[in-house]
Amino acid sequence: MTRTMASIGTKWKPIIIYTIGKRTIRFGQIYALMGIISKKVLTEQLKELVEDGIISREKFDELPPRVEYTLTPKGIDLLRILNMLTIWNDKHNPEPAQK
Amino acid sequence: MTRTMASIGTKWKPIIIYTIGKRTIRFGQIYALMGIISKKVLTEQLKELVEDGIISREKFDELPPRVEYTLTPKGIDLLRILNMLTIWNDKHNPEPAQK
Repeated sequence: MTRTMASIGTKWKPIIIYTIGKRTIRFGQIYALMGIISKKVLTEQLKELVEDGIISREKFDELPPRVEYTLTPKGIDLLRILNMLTIWNDKHNPEPAQK
Repeated sequence: MTRTMASIGTKWKPIIIYTIGKRTIRFGQIYALMGIISKKVLTEQLKELVEDGIISREKFDELPPRVEYTLTPKGIDLLRILNMLTIWNDKHNPEPAQK
């Protein structure tokens, strides 16, 4: 378990993986969708996730340059488990009803 | 997902839950089994896990006093998902063969 948490340990990585989901998405979209992370931290976390083989990064030589991120099969596998975590959380920690 | 990570976000909690597993266990045993956490941090994390209803704490009025921790049904539910995470990690990040 210690090794597992080391590879996905920071609280950001699960949220980034969940935000990317099953689509192909750009840095700016991830940043906007998350809204709670700095560009510096997001850049570092994305770099680590690429190094860990959880997401793939594709750069298009255009002007301005376009970079897109997609979950790898390994990432999709992890997303499935992260989805179970949110179901667990919704079941056990339901959001208070909106007044 | 952000709420989910907030409730189980620190890297310690999953490891503590995994260490307790399906048994009833004392502070000293958790501390010894984990070996990589300070007593102060373990005490704080256990307190939060009790407050979150993930583990239960039972104190026995003996000399010396005995305190035991057990996963609640909510904790057992989470343990099941954490087990999937370790399976995912072993599948995708196999430990290098011992030389």
